[in-house]
Amino acid sequence: MEIHTEDRCAKAKLAIRDTLDVVGGKWKLVLLSVLRNGKRGFNELSREAGISPRILSKELQELEMNGLVSREVCNTKPVTVQYALTEYSKTLEEVLIAMEKWGNLHRQKVISGN
Amino acid sequence: MEIHTEDRCAKAKLAIRDTLDVVGGKWKLVLLSVLRNGKRGFNELSREAGISPRILSKELQELEMNGLVSREVCNTKPVTVQYALTEYSKTLEEVLIAMEKWGNLHRQKVISGN
Repeated sequence: MEIHTEDRCAKAKLAIRDTLDVVGGKWKLVLLSVLRNGKRGFNELSREAGISPRILSKELQELEMNGLVSREVCNTKPVTVQYALTEYSKTLEEVLIAMEKWGNLHRQKVISGN
Repeated sequence: MEIHTEDRCAKAKLAIRDTLDVVGGKWKLVLLSVLRNGKRGFNELSREAGISPRILSKELQELEMNGLVSREVCNTKPVTVQYALTEYSKTLEEVLIAMEKWGNLHRQKVISGN
């Protein structure tokens, strides 16, 4: 079945905007990319991603709310919290890989003087 | 050759951040997605993407600066300007498609109640 082009265009725009609503902004994809290498504590994440604790806390909350990151409270002294990717977050793999590839490509372009 | 995991992780993070620096934010990927359907005038773009003229102007300038959008002044009365994708912007196709796919998937998930 053929879909009318204008419809398809509007649908594509909407889908991209949906994705940006969930993982857009400066940090979320960077955080997910760090967590691909295994679970992390709050301070580790803050350091590795270079995010201030205040912003990190908000970003993690939003990622958790959308089912992309899980939060595990560990029975240590003092209590620590570990953040990890959820199964669902693996559906973003293709987005992360495409962005990583493009970042490398663009860097090469900039270095070689366009 | 094996790359050390921590190195690879830092490189991936950097590449994703590079991509976000160029096409991050609320609008750039939406604009590129609209322009995939052909060149547009300024007002058309403003309407189709739902962006205020002031913000649109800034976003287009940045996209042009990074070689992703071309700006053509047409000898009409009054003078009009057409924006189009550059050849280089086609390297972002994979990112756009991955984000479109994920937006659709996530919408299904939300509709079906997680």
